Amino acid sequence: MTDQMQRIVLAKRPQGEPGDDCFRLETLDVPSPGDGEVLVRAEYMSLDPYMRGRMDDAKSYSAPVEIGETMGGGAVGEVLVSHHAGFKPGDKVMGMTGWATHGVLPGSQLRKLDPSLPITPALGVLGMPGFTGWYGLTQIGQPKEGETLVVAAATGGVGSVVGQVARARGLRTIGIAGGPEKCRIATETFGFDACLDHRAHNDARSLRAALKEVCPDGIDIYFENVGGKVQEAVMPLMNTFGRIPLCGMIAGYNSGALGGVEAQGPDRSPVLWRSLLVKRMRLEGFIISDHFDRFPAFLKEVAPMVADGRVTYLEDVAEGLENAPETFRGLLKGRNMGKQLVKLT
Amino acid sequence: MTDQMQRIVLAKRPQGEPGDDCFRLETLDVPSPGDGEVLVRAEYMSLDPYMRGRMDDAKSYSAPVEIGETMGGGAVGEVLVSHHAGFKPGDKVMGMTGWATHGVLPGSQLRKLDPSLPITPALGVLGMPGFTGWYGLTQIGQPKEGETLVVAAATGGVGSVVGQVARARGLRTIGIAGGPEKCRIATETFGFDACLDHRAHNDARSLRAALKEVCPDGIDIYFENVGGKVQEAVMPLMNTFGRIPLCGMIAGYNSGALGGVEAQGPDRSPVLWRSLLVKRMRLEGFIISDHFDRFPAFLKEVAPMVADGRVTYLEDVAEGLENAPETFRGLLKGRNMGKQLVKLT
Repeated sequence: MTDQMQRIVLAKRPQGEPGDDCFRLETLDVPSPGDGEVLVRAEYMSLDPYMRGRMDDAKSYSAPVEIGETMGGGAVGEVLVSHHAGFKPGDKVMGMTGWATHGVLPGSQLRKLDPSLPITPALGVLGMPGFTGWYGLTQIGQPKEGETLVVAAATGGVGSVVGQVARARGLRTIGIAGGPEKCRIATETFGFDACLDHRAHNDARSLRAALKEVCPDGIDIYFENVGGKVQEAVMPLMNTFGRIPLCGMIAGYNSGALGGVEAQGPDRSPVLWRSLLVKRMRLEGFIISDHFDRFPAFLKEVAPMVADGRVTYLEDVAEGLENAPETFRGLLKGRNMGKQLVKLT
Repeated sequence: MTDQMQRIVLAKRPQGEPGDDCFRLETLDVPSPGDGEVLVRAEYMSLDPYMRGRMDDAKSYSAPVEIGETMGGGAVGEVLVSHHAGFKPGDKVMGMTGWATHGVLPGSQLRKLDPSLPITPALGVLGMPGFTGWYGLTQIGQPKEGETLVVAAATGGVGSVVGQVARARGLRTIGIAGGPEKCRIATETFGFDACLDHRAHNDARSLRAALKEVCPDGIDIYFENVGGKVQEAVMPLMNTFGRIPLCGMIAGYNSGALGGVEAQGPDRSPVLWRSLLVKRMRLEGFIISDHFDRFPAFLKEVAPMVADGRVTYLEDVAEGLENAPETFRGLLKGRNMGKQLVKLT
């Protein structure tokens, strides 16, 4: 008898918040790996806001999940069967096995993990979210000591790395987050110099006034990952030669939620050419999958910072694949506290 | 008896097109240079669209001309008296002596010219307009062989250098200009692969359709110096990883003219954050006076290209300081053919 596995497929495209009817839990036989392939049992899977975008049929930079297809995403787990010379049973690996208890991938698409260290950071602080934050901050933002940085979703997987790496490089770091508890964590756990609760401000004007107080020298880098009210509040406070990395992870959001920030559709928010010119600003969109060649440089800088505690992380772990849809909805509303994971075994 | 000189001062701030009442021609004694200063007799002065912006009292990156003050600008001429060790009478120099037949400047603010070569290029192809085009194209645009570039005001001092340097680097170059004669010059004199007459298109949609035909592989670099209809036509044709240098020389225009292109106020033209992200574009404003440290690198690349004819230039020379206001109005309407100069002696 073949072993069984479970997966969640996209049953229907959502309108706004994805209801239970958008997902279907299926049980099937564990597949056998072909030549060069590896069978992995997933121990933890990642839930990320970008997954909401993939549920739509909209043209974007990444293909949508098809109806009936497994919801995509990253996971960490253990090799069960390997037909690839680089892996053996028992190896800990990270790969894009999606919302599923098992997956078969070519060995070339798996990243081997150090079994003496915790493996879940490979989905967060040392995975795509951390890499996204590091790339945008360092490669586009070009931070300089003494400058001021603002990032929203400051306790999230991207924002918390942006803030901590910036702080380690001598910047003043200002976070924005939803609710007093997240703001407390931003300053106490992630070392932000200040964190503003966007829920305490009804409009951009009010948020801007509060930002102005904690950014007495203006803003040099705005790591843009939310849009909407935050963006509107920040833009007039940008300094001459300001840099705005525009983070790919927000693309495709249409129901307005990342860490609870009510984002407008990015298309409705104009950039003012004249301000960009008069302030000589740089605005650059990036999508992290274009930049995997920089992943080693990221690990080289950030892994030691995680090891010595200069960069810390929080994880929010839900239990069981069947709870992924409800957990995912919570994530889109900013209910998670730290990197959202689902424990599968 | 002291020698006399003439100058034109700002008499009144203009509303729209600057009428004759905005200027006043004055005759006064030639000033004596102090310690470290040099008296220059201007032979040719430059007229540039940015001067219109300086006539307004608007806050911008450069201070406005004050009422009663000499209209600013560059000129080339000859040293009459020098109290600076670096210059002697008879030297040919370039300096910001403004709309005037003579000027006194610190020697440190003068650039000595090679007397064996024509001196007027120091106001155009080898001066600020050429430097602006080169800087935006090469330092921000990062052109790669085989890519497609679009620039408006293609026969102007900036656009013609952008096109020719891009062509020398192996790009497909598409110009936009006002009227069939300028389009002919763009292709025949400046070597553009094609040039579109924006006056032949009533709206952005029509211009875009024409652009699409001459840019079969899309647009990789849009050198933004006009805004308005051209910008609106270009943006949807930009390729992934497109670059948009946003040129400081347009700042402050309010009456809609650069090479006859009807520019909107830059502020009314939205950039769509989502397009910037999905296409991973870079948009960067620059003002050439921030980058004088790159001037030697510019001369090193472009001066030999001017010498061997790979980069050519056209000059439109008016006669006499008293004709500067009328010539300036013509420039703002795109009536000039090539770099606008006024011969003063």
